[in-house]
Amino acid sequence: MSTRLGALRSHCPINFALEAMGDRWSLLIVRDIAFWGKLTFGAFSSSKEKIASNILASRLDRLLNEGVLAKTEDADDRRKDFYTLTQKGLDLIPLLLEMVSWSEKYDAASEARKQPAFVKRIRKDRDKVAFELKELVRRGGSAFGSVQPNL
Amino acid sequence: MSTRLGALRSHCPINFALEAMGDRWSLLIVRDIAFWGKLTFGAFSSSKEKIASNILASRLDRLLNEGVLAKTEDADDRRKDFYTLTQKGLDLIPLLLEMVSWSEKYDAASEARKQPAFVKRIRKDRDKVAFELKELVRRGGSAFGSVQPNL
Repeated sequence: MSTRLGALRSHCPINFALEAMGDRWSLLIVRDIAFWGKLTFGAFSSSKEKIASNILASRLDRLLNEGVLAKTEDADDRRKDFYTLTQKGLDLIPLLLEMVSWSEKYDAASEARKQPAFVKRIRKDRDKVAFELKELVRRGGSAFGSVQPNL
Repeated sequence: MSTRLGALRSHCPINFALEAMGDRWSLLIVRDIAFWGKLTFGAFSSSKEKIASNILASRLDRLLNEGVLAKTEDADDRRKDFYTLTQKGLDLIPLLLEMVSWSEKYDAASEARKQPAFVKRIRKDRDKVAFELKELVRRGGSAFGSVQPNL
């Protein structure tokens, strides 16, 4: 991480967060863990945005290097490696909640409109929702239930 | 906008927000307006991340097409065109504030650490800070004062 930080374009906090993410694929991985309980390479691959395997591998490495993800390796089968959010990764959850709120407002076809109670809670009591979701994800849960990992 | 929306990878709200932004340059432009009072092509060009002119032109077009920015044209000189945030753009301000808070925590060299009162207010009373900043930017102000546009 220290080498990459040396190449940062600026320490403006907006730029830092954007460079830490790299591109949109990284936050989709964080979403998969926090919202859908996905934990494995195979589970991330199956998301509907259809990330290519080489890009997924590269983004997982990046997020591990950034300290956003941690990995529990399976000695026998890499496909069974589990990825989880570190505290740094869990702390991205409020950012995800802001994105849910923004997109629900501006995307007429938003999937968030199928979760009106969730969106209402985010807007009314975001800090509490963020705190509870962080604790849930830290304990292995997720916002919308767990997905059977593709092992 | 309708053609691009047709090509969306999903209507997941996280994906929608990420695709609306496109890449990190777009949010840096939103930052330049909301935090630094920059309004013109020349002013955006002068930011320390050193965006290339062709990329800046492309991202401004994209943000106009997305309805995040509006443009007030100068009939005589394109360099005097003014870009402002629409309501959709102003509504990204809470997202920027979350990024400030996250980066202040995780970047030891963060410029946000030079603004401890601002960061403290974000964490204590984010909704109020977001509301006030939106109103300020709507009226032509910005979080950290105005920058003389490069006209």
